[in-house]
Amino acid sequence: MADKNRRIVLAARPHGEPTPDDFRLEEAPVPEPGPGEILLRTRWLSLDPYMRGRMSAAKSYAASVEIGAPITAETVGEVVASNNPAFKPGDLVTAFAGWQDYCVTDGKGSRRVDPAVAPPSTALGVLGMPGMTAYTGLLNIGRPKAGETVAVAAASGPVGSLVGQIARLKGARAVGIAGGPDKCRYLTEELGFDAAVDHRAADFPDALAAACPGGIDVYFENVGGAVFDAVMPLLNDFARIPVCGLVSAYNATEVPPDPDRLPALMRMTLTKRLHIQGFIVWDFASQAQAFREEVGGWLKAGRVRYREDVVEGLERAPEAFIGLLKGRNFGKLVVRVS
Amino acid sequence: MADKNRRIVLAARPHGEPTPDDFRLEEAPVPEPGPGEILLRTRWLSLDPYMRGRMSAAKSYAASVEIGAPITAETVGEVVASNNPAFKPGDLVTAFAGWQDYCVTDGKGSRRVDPAVAPPSTALGVLGMPGMTAYTGLLNIGRPKAGETVAVAAASGPVGSLVGQIARLKGARAVGIAGGPDKCRYLTEELGFDAAVDHRAADFPDALAAACPGGIDVYFENVGGAVFDAVMPLLNDFARIPVCGLVSAYNATEVPPDPDRLPALMRMTLTKRLHIQGFIVWDFASQAQAFREEVGGWLKAGRVRYREDVVEGLERAPEAFIGLLKGRNFGKLVVRVS
Repeated sequence: MADKNRRIVLAARPHGEPTPDDFRLEEAPVPEPGPGEILLRTRWLSLDPYMRGRMSAAKSYAASVEIGAPITAETVGEVVASNNPAFKPGDLVTAFAGWQDYCVTDGKGSRRVDPAVAPPSTALGVLGMPGMTAYTGLLNIGRPKAGETVAVAAASGPVGSLVGQIARLKGARAVGIAGGPDKCRYLTEELGFDAAVDHRAADFPDALAAACPGGIDVYFENVGGAVFDAVMPLLNDFARIPVCGLVSAYNATEVPPDPDRLPALMRMTLTKRLHIQGFIVWDFASQAQAFREEVGGWLKAGRVRYREDVVEGLERAPEAFIGLLKGRNFGKLVVRVS
Repeated sequence: MADKNRRIVLAARPHGEPTPDDFRLEEAPVPEPGPGEILLRTRWLSLDPYMRGRMSAAKSYAASVEIGAPITAETVGEVVASNNPAFKPGDLVTAFAGWQDYCVTDGKGSRRVDPAVAPPSTALGVLGMPGMTAYTGLLNIGRPKAGETVAVAAASGPVGSLVGQIARLKGARAVGIAGGPDKCRYLTEELGFDAAVDHRAADFPDALAAACPGGIDVYFENVGGAVFDAVMPLLNDFARIPVCGLVSAYNATEVPPDPDRLPALMRMTLTKRLHIQGFIVWDFASQAQAFREEVGGWLKAGRVRYREDVVEGLERAPEAFIGLLKGRNFGKLVVRVS
């Protein structure tokens, strides 16, 4: 066990795109677990787009990270000391340790990760928060029916890739939108998507229309911006739009100067009877067990696949996170901390 | 029985606000009912904002009115000749006769109106399409819970006034938004709304905020524009927005030059987990009987009230309709045709 706890704290609130200067690597003493508490050494750290919101002071569904505090993150850690009979040294458990080597927790909200079932890092991806986000948002709000077309943005990421695969398991057509030919190939050749469209290609709107000849019945929104613009005219009557993320806008610093399209969206909402609904995974917390059982079963049966993009070392988290907001990762981005 | 059928046809597609020149009063022979058909003489004609959409060529949930054809409208008519055993002369029935004195129909989609139950014109208002719009949109999408705040635009109209009254019957607070002090007084003093706010007052956004100290849980959208702008910052987490109409935009001819607020709406949808859903009454056609029984019961018990704005004579329909889009009516706008 190291005698220092390295941690990456928020040095400054990013203005627009985060830069390395917004983060600071610090060393602190390894904390001591009190009565009922456990000490966790972080093995895996999850990097997710929502963290950009936590770095801002703007009001949202969760509190902001304070300046000088470690960045929020879910982790898989190993119990190295325990004053809690529910956990013993060597156990692997999930926690919200943040970007640091060690944390102390009372274990509430943690769950044990069994490495015999699946690699522990999947507890942060396909079997964790991103997977449950895909599962709950698609099934509760998107509600795809057999024969419908489900389009999903950021489709090679951990949420989007599962959205498309579940859509197919429900008998729908899955159309993935991703950045670049490699990701698109992965979607169709490895995950079985019916089509994949590169949002960086010059003909993106036309290519998306061609990939959705029957229109779009469910659009799972992870991105916003130009992707949503291309989706809008393709939406069918009664289309459902689970709004899960808007990563293209997370670094925005001002209101776009374009003409105001809010009235046009509302008009389309009325004439096409769209159902647009924002959600976060915790809104469906009661479905956690159903999610783990069902997706765990699909994973075991080989009906669902996943891909991880592994970054080595805590110190590389800021750079990896900055790249995540630009779509540089390919698959679920996780940091192997130790 | 008159020997001519007066009808008002679409002379030209309105550009922006309709003008009298967009309409033309014509005379035609009274049509003859064929086998299985009935001839109806229009007694009451409903004027509703949705008709503005039918006058445009833009694609929507219903076909446009053709140039030279009578404007679409639901009516209550008296059977004056019948080749259909289900209807006999003297019966009052609903139909989509349009803006004219007579129509021939096979009676499909018509229902008999019993003047002993309620005045026949209510079949076009509180017990008709507007009432059912309020009932189905509020209960299926808005789903108000006791103690929540329901705000409704165009609140003194036939849809809005019933939305607020049903909200109160469900234990929610009803806040009406209407144009002018008379309408606002009517909402609080005669319909029992908890508060009413005049959207024409200079301090409208502040007054709305003051009327909704706990925020807004359900916003029933009939209007759009500046009213929606004032509502947006007051929306609570998990607010539901049934989008029923956007009358402020029906005469719009171009995209507003303001900064693009679509991204801001989507961001708010995500962070507040809003549920925005467009609908039209026919989406809930299977609930027609439940609506008539429940609202009919409330009406009979004096728990629901309504107000009509009666225009005398078919020839005044264009002027009354133009005024409707400016909020000049006070209550359900109906034309007494004969």
